[in-house]
Amino acid sequence: MDEVEKSKIIFQPSGRRGEVKKGVTIIEASRQLGVDIESLCGEKKVCGKCKIRIEEGFFEKYGIQSSKDHAGEWLIEEEKFINREQREAGYRLGCCANVEGDLLVFVPEESRAGKQVVSKAARDIHIDWNPAVKYYYVEVTKPTFEEPTADLERILEELNRKYGLKNLDIDYLILKKLPNRLREGKWKVTVAVWMDREVIGVLPGQVENYYGMAIDVGTTTVAAYFCNLATMEVLDTVSMMNPQCKYGEDVMSRITYHMMHEGGLDRMSNDIIEGLNSLITQACEGTHPPQKKKKKKGGKEEAIEVNETPDGEKGKQYLCLNPSDIIDMTIVGNTAMHHILLKLNPEYVGVAPFPPVVHKGVDIKARDLGIHIHDSAYVHVLPNEAGFVGADNVGVLIAEEPYKKDEMQLIIDIGTNGELVLGNKEKLISSSCATGPALEGAQLAFGMRAAPGAIERIQIDPDTNEVDYKVIGRDAWRSYSKPEEMQTKGICGSGILDVLAELYRSGVILKSGRFNPKQKSNRSRRNSENSQPEFVIAWAEETSIGKDILITQKDIRQIQLAKGALYCGCKLMMRRMGIEKLDKVKIAGAFGTHVDREKALIMGLFPDCEIDKIISVGNAAGDGARAALLNREKREEANWVSSNVEYIELTVEKDFQQQFMEAMQIPHMKDQFSHLKGIVPDEILDQK
Amino acid sequence: MDEVEKSKIIFQPSGRRGEVKKGVTIIEASRQLGVDIESLCGEKKVCGKCKIRIEEGFFEKYGIQSSKDHAGEWLIEEEKFINREQREAGYRLGCCANVEGDLLVFVPEESRAGKQVVSKAARDIHIDWNPAVKYYYVEVTKPTFEEPTADLERILEELNRKYGLKNLDIDYLILKKLPNRLREGKWKVTVAVWMDREVIGVLPGQVENYYGMAIDVGTTTVAAYFCNLATMEVLDTVSMMNPQCKYGEDVMSRITYHMMHEGGLDRMSNDIIEGLNSLITQACEGTHPPQKKKKKKGGKEEAIEVNETPDGEKGKQYLCLNPSDIIDMTIVGNTAMHHILLKLNPEYVGVAPFPPVVHKGVDIKARDLGIHIHDSAYVHVLPNEAGFVGADNVGVLIAEEPYKKDEMQLIIDIGTNGELVLGNKEKLISSSCATGPALEGAQLAFGMRAAPGAIERIQIDPDTNEVDYKVIGRDAWRSYSKPEEMQTKGICGSGILDVLAELYRSGVILKSGRFNPKQKSNRSRRNSENSQPEFVIAWAEETSIGKDILITQKDIRQIQLAKGALYCGCKLMMRRMGIEKLDKVKIAGAFGTHVDREKALIMGLFPDCEIDKIISVGNAAGDGARAALLNREKREEANWVSSNVEYIELTVEKDFQQQFMEAMQIPHMKDQFSHLKGIVPDEILDQK
Repeated sequence: MDEVEKSKIIFQPSGRRGEVKKGVTIIEASRQLGVDIESLCGEKKVCGKCKIRIEEGFFEKYGIQSSKDHAGEWLIEEEKFINREQREAGYRLGCCANVEGDLLVFVPEESRAGKQVVSKAARDIHIDWNPAVKYYYVEVTKPTFEEPTADLERILEELNRKYGLKNLDIDYLILKKLPNRLREGKWKVTVAVWMDREVIGVLPGQVENYYGMAIDVGTTTVAAYFCNLATMEVLDTVSMMNPQCKYGEDVMSRITYHMMHEGGLDRMSNDIIEGLNSLITQACEGTHPPQKKKKKKGGKEEAIEVNETPDGEKGKQYLCLNPSDIIDMTIVGNTAMHHILLKLNPEYVGVAPFPPVVHKGVDIKARDLGIHIHDSAYVHVLPNEAGFVGADNVGVLIAEEPYKKDEMQLIIDIGTNGELVLGNKEKLISSSCATGPALEGAQLAFGMRAAPGAIERIQIDPDTNEVDYKVIGRDAWRSYSKPEEMQTKGICGSGILDVLAELYRSGVILKSGRFNPKQKSNRSRRNSENSQPEFVIAWAEETSIGKDILITQKDIRQIQLAKGALYCGCKLMMRRMGIEKLDKVKIAGAFGTHVDREKALIMGLFPDCEIDKIISVGNAAGDGARAALLNREKREEANWVSSNVEYIELTVEKDFQQQFMEAMQIPHMKDQFSHLKGIVPDEILDQK
Repeated sequence: MDEVEKSKIIFQPSGRRGEVKKGVTIIEASRQLGVDIESLCGEKKVCGKCKIRIEEGFFEKYGIQSSKDHAGEWLIEEEKFINREQREAGYRLGCCANVEGDLLVFVPEESRAGKQVVSKAARDIHIDWNPAVKYYYVEVTKPTFEEPTADLERILEELNRKYGLKNLDIDYLILKKLPNRLREGKWKVTVAVWMDREVIGVLPGQVENYYGMAIDVGTTTVAAYFCNLATMEVLDTVSMMNPQCKYGEDVMSRITYHMMHEGGLDRMSNDIIEGLNSLITQACEGTHPPQKKKKKKGGKEEAIEVNETPDGEKGKQYLCLNPSDIIDMTIVGNTAMHHILLKLNPEYVGVAPFPPVVHKGVDIKARDLGIHIHDSAYVHVLPNEAGFVGADNVGVLIAEEPYKKDEMQLIIDIGTNGELVLGNKEKLISSSCATGPALEGAQLAFGMRAAPGAIERIQIDPDTNEVDYKVIGRDAWRSYSKPEEMQTKGICGSGILDVLAELYRSGVILKSGRFNPKQKSNRSRRNSENSQPEFVIAWAEETSIGKDILITQKDIRQIQLAKGALYCGCKLMMRRMGIEKLDKVKIAGAFGTHVDREKALIMGLFPDCEIDKIISVGNAAGDGARAALLNREKREEANWVSSNVEYIELTVEKDFQQQFMEAMQIPHMKDQFSHLKGIVPDEILDQK
């Protein structure tokens, strides 16, 4: 047997270190050591986001001799992203460079996958109380010689007599606990029954409150609603980045990761399961009193719990819940997230005709999934509509219920993929469009996730083309700050649309998306290397990355492609439905929450609609998961709607290409945007 | 932290060795090292079966210094079983002596828990084919753009169209395998469906044969029937000792073990689960070609499989099955075995009014139980009637179906506990009687399990009182063998009744059970220590244990107690039922297979019945498990019968004590045994 050769590797500035197998890529090494490096393309060597720098020399502190030669051969793919100067400074792509010997690796700030700021709060939607799990209190008599009936039958008879529950099964793990719980409760117990079919919990005495969790597994963000199933109250909303982001930013990258890596599916699945478990723990910790300080006692650290909220509210009652108190869970996610989470082969969802493994909603024991909630609890995963329209969209539908309305609604859920539903109580059709992650800030030169330092709002003066902007994590706009206070890092999803709309409104770019030849400031310039026009949003001195933050012609094309796909999708669906006008446009997802409706219209993101009929519905997918958690009929409704929405594959329409090309213009059709008169100068509107 | 102090211990003659924690008993140490020492009483220090010998001296070969002083203090309880001479030779009880230092321990043959010879072959009973799991073959079309239905729905629709199966669930683990199996089979698959409710298997192509296992978990013996579910053929019958025997011989000892030992229930349960897994493996290995020889190849041993049966039958087709091919399983067992297997607290089954945790049959995923068969298979555990009449008796009932007959049947299942059912299609009553393990050979001076060397048949000459006998594992009787060829070790269950009946028939003992004062041979003598009468069955020279094998007065009392309990139970049940005479007596269990009906009548084991109406029904409990495996309606029938048999607690009857005392006589009532005239001499029959 050969011994596996290993090398030492240290990542700066985090200082994470360890030994890894020789020959692995630096990205792989970073993953093993828990260092997050951006990898939008899923290591396909095409996004250039995983740039790192190899430090050269002998580093006595760590006892390693690091050398560029230790990082393997330079690959042709790296040329595109690393110029000669950078190459000489030791820059490499993490997906191309290998660990061939001891290495000290510096991860520049722009390559670090930071913690995202998410806003997926629970909306106030109407839900009727009818959870899948209900608690029933029963009192039974003690066994006697005359009546030595078994513990279980004793309880089942009473559940039947008092509540009419018949033919109940019992989960094996609860059967094991039954005799002791029954005696502990002095023959009075509260029984948790799932779907009037199975006993999944027995607690001594009378218990009134019980808890569940509704989860929306997004490609980028995971949000969880912690609910009291008895009162329907939302105790808390917690969220996190999808830990699978390190395998690639979009669903196709993840599907590719599965296909290219032995065990890749299990790895990605285990990462999200582990992520959900930590999210659950985090939500439960929020119900415990804060730990004020730690004290050394007998050599051990001991947490002192204080019955006080962080802001000093004394005497507050803490629920002190644990993951085992969560007795039900619902999950939504797009088809790829659904499949990867459940370890279902996502390969066929990635190629035409994109059949998923399963449509209907499935009930899986949490323990079979490795999700650490109540031992006997089920996880209900909502149904998928089609390969590209998943359970998340079904969640949106059961939250918004367009199939109960007369008005013709268009519901747009813009995540990494765009999902569209159009219809009313007569008919519903759905489709998906490949918006790509551009509208979320990815694939752009300075795109980034919604993390501190990301530009989220911008204004460009039409006369001077001067820029004012604001970044996440800082209230003051650029014009009210010193340059060095901004620490700007890039442009996030909600900022992208602002940037484009302002560039157009101020005449920097034309409706074709090309830069206006008539430029008014030194922010408009040509790239020194490729001579392409670009526009400076933030000067190097205002940034934390030490260089100008730009919008390039290529960036604009990316966003045009995204908005073109979206507009074209909407338009073709309307044609299918035989309608000219929308009664209502609902925008779901984080994008919808941040989007400026006027700017969406300027951009021609979707067909014309009265501006006050454009509504942001927030995380409607998560609301759907919550509805299905609190009302079991919503699960039936989800199955019904998922098989009654007609999925339309738009790319097979004959004139798809032409429609798509037209839709890329900003705005799409001048005559439909008559209301833009006055907002956008005529000369801009008229130009091609 | 204190380091745990350990000592070396070596067991001879097996040579098993290892380190154990200081202070544990020698029995505990033997368990940890996989050495089986008899422990009938469950370490309550009362049976004296775990006698071992401490070897003294320095054993260079093992590098240990063994000393009697290393085995802890001598306990008062040991006096009863170990005389001074033995004590000086180093004898101790394994449950009393502790490991206080390095030890070399010799386990005498009589203290070894040997592998038992069991005979639980499958009987030919009529069963209608309707297994809980059925295989369905379907062909589906490939997904297209027009019809991109999901893999699962594609199959479910076809199962509905072709076989009328509706609303099927699917086990999560199968859902994971579905997409690949479907493509592997080129859209043709065989689907395993459980109870028309859940898809639990998908195999590529058309599969016709599938397999299940019916298991009878006895207190002492575990038997398994390996069945082809498509053809109902019994492929093989395998059996083993219940590995829990080391925790005590009878159910009460095991319940006590649970109550006295932290984690005892888990330990006993895991032992039987592990036992079942090895039994399953063994059954599957029987379907593979034998491995002829092993050859060294490249430093590794490699098994050469030959397509030949052990007796040279060439060209035989081997099924080559693996545990994962077993798609269904049924289990019966008495209530205590049922509870311990399922890790259900058996504590309350052991004390009045003996309520079990559950009556009805339960379906548990094999994986939740840790039973290694098909990943998604269920294990169906048959229902319990009452605390002392368990699923094994229900198995007997559904195999024998007394509730479908006009005739009044008494069904006796004698295992370590006696279970009785009396009735016909009008009414069924059941009870249990504490026969104890005496009828199985336990608790007797030279009782042992049915292993090689155990006396199973005996004849005593009425004139000379000379003895002839036969042992298990040797065809020739004593009279046709040289003494040293016998290697006799003890008396097994099926021999006990023979011995008593012969002692009575030959006049050695009287109907009261006392020894006849008029003795005819030197085999009748008085014990040198306690002056009690005893009778030599085998002289020391014929044995492998180097001492005379005896029947003592105490032994006779034990058997009388057992037979008294049984007779009295039958009698009281007949009184309850208001009948004087039985139409039929069925004896189930291994005991029934071996019992000589005439001698059972001589002994007065049960109320009078025409001798040709006494039928041995073999392992009817196991047959019931098999019936429930092959016919799902039998599971319903089991639930029905278990709740329609009236359980009667006999010990609460007013005249129970008096009835019991009377029943202890051999035979019980002279006038009812008129047919014994001529078989037993008048002077014996008349004497008290």
